[in-house]
Amino acid sequence: MRGRLITLEGGEGAGKSTLLRGLEAHLRERGVDLVVTREPGGTVVGEAVRGVVLDAANNELCAESELLLMFASRAQLVRQVIDPALAAGRWVLCDRFTDASYAYQGGGRGQPVERIAELERWAAHGLKPDVTLLLDLPVSTGRARAAGRGEADRIEVEGDAFFERVREAYRERASADPARFRVLDASAAPADVLDQAIAGVAGLFAEASS
Amino acid sequence: MRGRLITLEGGEGAGKSTLLRGLEAHLRERGVDLVVTREPGGTVVGEAVRGVVLDAANNELCAESELLLMFASRAQLVRQVIDPALAAGRWVLCDRFTDASYAYQGGGRGQPVERIAELERWAAHGLKPDVTLLLDLPVSTGRARAAGRGEADRIEVEGDAFFERVREAYRERASADPARFRVLDASAAPADVLDQAIAGVAGLFAEASS
Repeated sequence: MRGRLITLEGGEGAGKSTLLRGLEAHLRERGVDLVVTREPGGTVVGEAVRGVVLDAANNELCAESELLLMFASRAQLVRQVIDPALAAGRWVLCDRFTDASYAYQGGGRGQPVERIAELERWAAHGLKPDVTLLLDLPVSTGRARAAGRGEADRIEVEGDAFFERVREAYRERASADPARFRVLDASAAPADVLDQAIAGVAGLFAEASS
Repeated sequence: MRGRLITLEGGEGAGKSTLLRGLEAHLRERGVDLVVTREPGGTVVGEAVRGVVLDAANNELCAESELLLMFASRAQLVRQVIDPALAAGRWVLCDRFTDASYAYQGGGRGQPVERIAELERWAAHGLKPDVTLLLDLPVSTGRARAAGRGEADRIEVEGDAFFERVREAYRERASADPARFRVLDASAAPADVLDQAIAGVAGLFAEASS
């Protein structure tokens, strides 16, 4: 039977990397045949896109180009990695997916929602995750956590207003699709956030065994 | 007054690089303040895209991703290079532009025309060249010329049927917009092709001085 797609979303300093490792370990312990990947990235084109988009020196990159690059990476990842894995019954855990384009390129950069929806339709053939875990926390908390990490990339250098719009766009998407989204309180301790995430994906096992 | 945009288009082995150099020299001799650029390329994102798209080892690149990458490069080139140059009264000579997406990603790869037109509308804000020089010649002639050049890139390794579709798409675009296109007989000697091109852009000087 077809595999499951779980995506992780959230702003800067939300603890996405820590949760990813914890959730990966949990799923493997439960015997899930798992593929872990990320956006942008995961393929030749994806990693090249990652380099261009995150390079802090590339500060002239326009919003339209950024949006197109994200979907170029996504179109390839879906066809080369995600679709074949799901078809083979494997589960996929992806660090960011299309919701991130609505949040960052839409909410953050002001690209129109209809434009993003149209790209989602043909570039990602409308693929929706089975569960999306949204790590939500106040912008100031997340930024304070992220500040200790060394040099900021091209997106991390944006101001608070940018990240407030990103958070708002994420929360609106979660409200509009409560069956798919699990909004996690990312201000909690890492072990607690992991417990929330494990509870959030538990339903997928019930479906898989039914 | 606003500058002029001249684009060069054509298939493999059509003599585009030779013509570009000749036409550039001619325009500079006539006192044109000229910017010469190319697609994909011309910016940080454009050159990264060029590397991904032409890398013969990247043979899994899907048609959707290729199309998005080309427009990511174009969106940035238009905003960062072409628009400012035209606004400053400079002329721009560009080696390939949007017509190449209709020919290669549309005709060659089968991406729908409406999809390309929609990207042209917002990613390139519908920018049309003042004159497009199309170097047209039979596919077999062009490929025989290109064969002596050493290793083929990811697009050059395609078969004759692909390049026949590319040529046909170019010719259809030229037929549909005769006011903008000049179809040059690229099987002629280089000096003759340059003469055809010079005649093709002569009208721009008349407009510029009127």
